Amino acid sequence: MTAPPHETRPRNTGRALPDTQQGMRRRNLARVLHSVSAEGPLSRAGVAARIGLTRAAVSTLVDELIRAGLLEELGPERPARVGRPGSALTVSDRGPAGIGAEIGVDHLAVCAVDLRGAVRARAVRHGGNRGRAPGPVLEDLTALIHRVVAEAERAELWPAGLAVAVPGLVAGDGRTVVRAPNLDWLDTDLGGLLPADWPLTVDNEANFGALAELWLVDGTPRDFLHVSAEIGIGAAIVVDGDLLRGARGFAGELGHVPVRPDGPACACGGRGCLERYAGEEAVSRAAGVEPRGDTVRLLQERAEGGDEGVRAALRDAGTALGIALTGAVNLLDPETVVLGGALAGLSPWLLPSLEAELTGRTTGPACPVTVSGLGSEGPLLGAAHSVVRAVLDDPASVAGRS
Amino acid sequence: MTAPPHETRPRNTGRALPDTQQGMRRRNLARVLHSVSAEGPLSRAGVAARIGLTRAAVSTLVDELIRAGLLEELGPERPARVGRPGSALTVSDRGPAGIGAEIGVDHLAVCAVDLRGAVRARAVRHGGNRGRAPGPVLEDLTALIHRVVAEAERAELWPAGLAVAVPGLVAGDGRTVVRAPNLDWLDTDLGGLLPADWPLTVDNEANFGALAELWLVDGTPRDFLHVSAEIGIGAAIVVDGDLLRGARGFAGELGHVPVRPDGPACACGGRGCLERYAGEEAVSRAAGVEPRGDTVRLLQERAEGGDEGVRAALRDAGTALGIALTGAVNLLDPETVVLGGALAGLSPWLLPSLEAELTGRTTGPACPVTVSGLGSEGPLLGAAHSVVRAVLDDPASVAGRS
Repeated sequence: MTAPPHETRPRNTGRALPDTQQGMRRRNLARVLHSVSAEGPLSRAGVAARIGLTRAAVSTLVDELIRAGLLEELGPERPARVGRPGSALTVSDRGPAGIGAEIGVDHLAVCAVDLRGAVRARAVRHGGNRGRAPGPVLEDLTALIHRVVAEAERAELWPAGLAVAVPGLVAGDGRTVVRAPNLDWLDTDLGGLLPADWPLTVDNEANFGALAELWLVDGTPRDFLHVSAEIGIGAAIVVDGDLLRGARGFAGELGHVPVRPDGPACACGGRGCLERYAGEEAVSRAAGVEPRGDTVRLLQERAEGGDEGVRAALRDAGTALGIALTGAVNLLDPETVVLGGALAGLSPWLLPSLEAELTGRTTGPACPVTVSGLGSEGPLLGAAHSVVRAVLDDPASVAGRS
Repeated sequence: MTAPPHETRPRNTGRALPDTQQGMRRRNLARVLHSVSAEGPLSRAGVAARIGLTRAAVSTLVDELIRAGLLEELGPERPARVGRPGSALTVSDRGPAGIGAEIGVDHLAVCAVDLRGAVRARAVRHGGNRGRAPGPVLEDLTALIHRVVAEAERAELWPAGLAVAVPGLVAGDGRTVVRAPNLDWLDTDLGGLLPADWPLTVDNEANFGALAELWLVDGTPRDFLHVSAEIGIGAAIVVDGDLLRGARGFAGELGHVPVRPDGPACACGGRGCLERYAGEEAVSRAAGVEPRGDTVRLLQERAEGGDEGVRAALRDAGTALGIALTGAVNLLDPETVVLGGALAGLSPWLLPSLEAELTGRTTGPACPVTVSGLGSEGPLLGAAHSVVRAVLDDPASVAGRS
């Protein structure tokens, strides 16, 4: 493999709105929508009290959000204290939806999430994608997307954007897969291969998994290391509630941290990388399991059934993970490490040896390791919710597009 | 060693000024001072044009900065184009100064830097501090501080604050050394042991070294990994121009990244940590050099003189650094790695094997490694400049204190 030629600048997760009167209006629309989203149902007066604008100003903004299909009125209510009866506002479950998609090595998945955060449509296609050309894979994905969008439209939702999680490095343009070794894709612009009807964002699956953890799981700290695995092993670094993307957007390559520097050669060019000990292929080989179909589920079933070979392979993988994470924790000092993706389901057999390394290699309390409640759903949910968050952060961007 | 009991929250490097009329005035004072600092000498009209305020508003702010001793007038000049002759403004070299101090394992150093960034006084005390109690070390440091302050005062400078670089982990209070293994200090509050006349900040030497690189060396990127060494090996992670401090403020512990997981035991509780291969003690032992006095200079002299044993020891240290940095680069994707501190002087013998690891373990272009131009002066300069930057960022904080 040769070096990717891309100019790759990291993206911002949030958008800064311009500092003009128009920018002020857009920010205020976002404040109203966020307020109802976080604390609704709320009356106009309730919103005004929370965001410190006049009731008249809030009413104008609310009317605009209702016209855009982002808010709806639940009908008149009696306010708890004084004043005229107000009408309670809630975020609409019929307006814009985020379409999330995941290109996995063993499956494709698509879902639609409404502004309230509910999954309203979902489609999955099982089957290996390793070594398949991008064209046919994205044709299959497009068919799933159309199926999910059709189902969402029957529920009066319309797609505000499409976000795609991939098991690889993504260029700063948010469209191009620079390298997805387990798919065998290099420099693939997904933009031309997916429906152009909606704004598109492509990102690494570990990044979307980490964002899902941050946004959807109560108690997730704002500084954590999210370890994710499908076939490869990736990580996402969250610092003060934001992804650390790195200079080229390639941060989080935990799978290629050297664990045993003289170990076996890795496709990345290195030797003894974590993936050579804890990646799905390495674990399958060590366990004597043929890696095909849903290998993770197979490993999980055998480990649950007491297969000592599988359990020993997972113990060794946990040890390798613990060594690599000791280095990562020393560098990053996260509040927690979260095991997500396929690792979540395998955690009962990985965690003891993983934690033994972390504890044994640390003076004082080791960094706590938790298991993601979202598991392998994280990347797909993170993708869909990233679109929903973009709408909540700048409702004016979709007003008039319904 | 047991766990430090501290509540340790990371600090912000910048201060957000309050969003009031008073806050606005303070921000505008900072804008005027920054403008003259970056582009002066400038006339009042020149400042007004650059920051977009009226000439009258700028004049009021300038007068306040002159009264506070932060700006001075160079006397009348003919403006290049039209209007009355203006008086060129420059940042004062007689106002506030930043006092930087460094507690090294083998030395103590203090300097005073004026608002123009010039070092105006400096004092060093050579001699080992390993195993000395904090009290006597800080008495020695206080004597140096008084000497430097006296010299600065003779030049009409006055200390705006004191910043101290230490070879260890510092609590979020910015005063307490949680653990400095090479000094053998644990949970030492420096606040009570240093002159209380000026605002005090204590930080890790790698952090101050990285800030010096960022502030003082042209062409330093905004995303880099600064590797620093005195006796131990530390690192500072700079992301988008800010230090990544970690959840407890302990990020950057590169010295305890496992390089060979079954290697020799380390004081940190781990095995085969980088410091066991590339720390000064390990290198001295491998080179057959007695580690005492200025060991780094001794190693440098012997390597320059062609001592094959020393050169081989430094090559092996470079290999270990390369393995640990491969992991760090995979995780962080920095734009460059900068070798600072003692490593800068030893870089001719470290770099070839270090870069061979980084290149050999990477597909595509390896992350470039550069050598700090500040070398072992970085932490001391970074400390002093951190005080100067605080004054430039909020001149009102020192106005009236001269």
